[in-house]
Amino acid sequence: MKSFQYRNHTRIVFGEGALNSLADELRSCEKNILLAYGKGAIKREGIYDAVIKILADCGKNVTELSGIMPNPTAAKVREGVTLCKENNIDFILAVGGGSVIDCCKAIAVGAVVEEDFWDVLYKAHKKVPKALRIGTVLTMVGTGSEMNGNAVITNEEIKVKAGFNSPYVYPMFSILDPTFTYSLPQYQMVSGICDILSHLMELYFSGEDDNVSDDLNEALMKSIVKNARIAVKNPKDYDARSNIMWGATLALNDMLGVGKAQDWEVHQIEHQLGAYYDVAHGMGLAAVSASYYRFICKDGLQKFVKYAVNVWNVDPKGKTDEQTALEGIERLEAFFREIGASTSMRELGIPDKSKLSEIAESTNLLKSGYRTLTHEDVKNILEASF
Amino acid sequence: MKSFQYRNHTRIVFGEGALNSLADELRSCEKNILLAYGKGAIKREGIYDAVIKILADCGKNVTELSGIMPNPTAAKVREGVTLCKENNIDFILAVGGGSVIDCCKAIAVGAVVEEDFWDVLYKAHKKVPKALRIGTVLTMVGTGSEMNGNAVITNEEIKVKAGFNSPYVYPMFSILDPTFTYSLPQYQMVSGICDILSHLMELYFSGEDDNVSDDLNEALMKSIVKNARIAVKNPKDYDARSNIMWGATLALNDMLGVGKAQDWEVHQIEHQLGAYYDVAHGMGLAAVSASYYRFICKDGLQKFVKYAVNVWNVDPKGKTDEQTALEGIERLEAFFREIGASTSMRELGIPDKSKLSEIAESTNLLKSGYRTLTHEDVKNILEASF
Repeated sequence: MKSFQYRNHTRIVFGEGALNSLADELRSCEKNILLAYGKGAIKREGIYDAVIKILADCGKNVTELSGIMPNPTAAKVREGVTLCKENNIDFILAVGGGSVIDCCKAIAVGAVVEEDFWDVLYKAHKKVPKALRIGTVLTMVGTGSEMNGNAVITNEEIKVKAGFNSPYVYPMFSILDPTFTYSLPQYQMVSGICDILSHLMELYFSGEDDNVSDDLNEALMKSIVKNARIAVKNPKDYDARSNIMWGATLALNDMLGVGKAQDWEVHQIEHQLGAYYDVAHGMGLAAVSASYYRFICKDGLQKFVKYAVNVWNVDPKGKTDEQTALEGIERLEAFFREIGASTSMRELGIPDKSKLSEIAESTNLLKSGYRTLTHEDVKNILEASF
Repeated sequence: MKSFQYRNHTRIVFGEGALNSLADELRSCEKNILLAYGKGAIKREGIYDAVIKILADCGKNVTELSGIMPNPTAAKVREGVTLCKENNIDFILAVGGGSVIDCCKAIAVGAVVEEDFWDVLYKAHKKVPKALRIGTVLTMVGTGSEMNGNAVITNEEIKVKAGFNSPYVYPMFSILDPTFTYSLPQYQMVSGICDILSHLMELYFSGEDDNVSDDLNEALMKSIVKNARIAVKNPKDYDARSNIMWGATLALNDMLGVGKAQDWEVHQIEHQLGAYYDVAHGMGLAAVSASYYRFICKDGLQKFVKYAVNVWNVDPKGKTDEQTALEGIERLEAFFREIGASTSMRELGIPDKSKLSEIAESTNLLKSGYRTLTHEDVKNILEASF
């Protein structure tokens, strides 16, 4: 294993009825709270009313930020920062999925600095000095943002969708009630599942050493596939939704990535796809993944063989390593299709190839996977997944 | 999944040379430090000199508590508590294995209360009000105490070995350098491996629901078995020792036990064995495990079949479920033998059966596994493992 440091202090309250613990969790928080959410789904579900009642019973002063969109924008972050500064906000409560939480993480930093948040987080490698504390009530599953220090913001002016990471923005607590995910549209559930699997593959497909993190990762990939098949057929299967919800948290709470190299190139490509076309993040990842893995397969052949055999039960007998490896990638793609994910640019709704060069040129090249890509390579990968 | 709450704020610094981070970790600590260690192994290894130099360079006032024994005693805890009170200790640095860390956790509580620590921790369900902060430098692997709030203390006067758990005694940091474990006697390394596997099986063998925690658990059991086989042959295989060291932490940092029922009866039996005979904890667990699992096998048959197939690759074809399950337990026992663990009371050095009734009568019966034991059952299990 490589050397590493690990700390994650987020407190998780998990299970049906977990929202009942919100008052306890808020006890140590100050009075002025920003309640942030998306485009109103939480109002239809009764979650909004329940949260508002708890905040009122706790005697908190509530300022609301609504309308946080998927792929949250820099403009939305700035709107939240202004609200925080005008209302002396001490604590941010994010109610929603990864987009809402990510937006709140950026707001939490922007609210305590004088400069624009983008300059602090994305320019000149400035260190994040501090942030407002945040808590979350999770209503969509996939990003893992509920138990990590990561966030992704889209700067629409300069067409960049990019992540940041800071120890200051780990949520103080996250409330995870699997029944809150029952009424998600199937498309969003499937998109979340693709996001989880992509996180696990990004952690997995790099590095050569035999690593306990990879052993656990394979088990979690299999568990997600098994439970996704159940949940897609019966969205109200509590055990399946529980396993997926907690599996999503485990997939990106830093635990399974320690002590090893990680890739993250698929996320980089999808980020730029998302900056040009407003696609669902997980669906974008699904549409790019198989093409990317086929492209780098020979460079990390033994790992792709291991993946095919251990995760997808490919029988290697009578096959070359390359055949076994490619069969694993085919099974991944077939699984994406089976659960209704997009496996091509066309299914994603990208109308034509006109922007692919621009997307490829603006993709961040990480040099962290089995093969170092050029912008030309990215273009070929995008074309192959058309 | 069952509902659960999870929080673990321990910071891990992992890898060769991790001790170099000790000064950074101590920066936020107060001045008066209790340095606690065992019977001198850390002096032979140069770890003691390195730690003393770092503490001196940091300008700390150091009080030493040495001679902490395996199965740390209440008397030793009281010695530490007195030292803390006399020297206004603000922070405890535990350098050693689980026994040293566990002893320090009890001292950390005892040092801040007026009553005797035993009365606070073990009597009348008093709540632990607070504790001194502790940090650890781990030199032996197995207990997982470096990243949890558990400790086990032996009260020699009343012949009770028992655990406690408190959110206040999670280490602030733990420094894990796999090379510190190279020179451990083989017997202690093997004992640690048995302890790790036992933790995983105690988490695993209870509950009926299909649970992502169990999926990960199976992967970690397989990983420990794989790496143990390498480490027993070549104790200086860095990757194997790394995987075992981090695997031990993961096995008991609460993560793999969330959302499910747990057993812990094997630990209860071993605790009383340890209270009567000063046996190595992990070896005691190994000696009891197979007998216990054979005894409860029919009551949790489907889980034992799953274990046999998924962890030990038992082929269930042409076998009854019970045959498959028993073959899994046999493979566990064979593995213990293969790595040189004790698989019977006799190998453990228990001279005769004279104390078995007393041990069985004083064993805590948890009612948390697949079968609720009577004291008579415990006696039968102990006799079967003679």
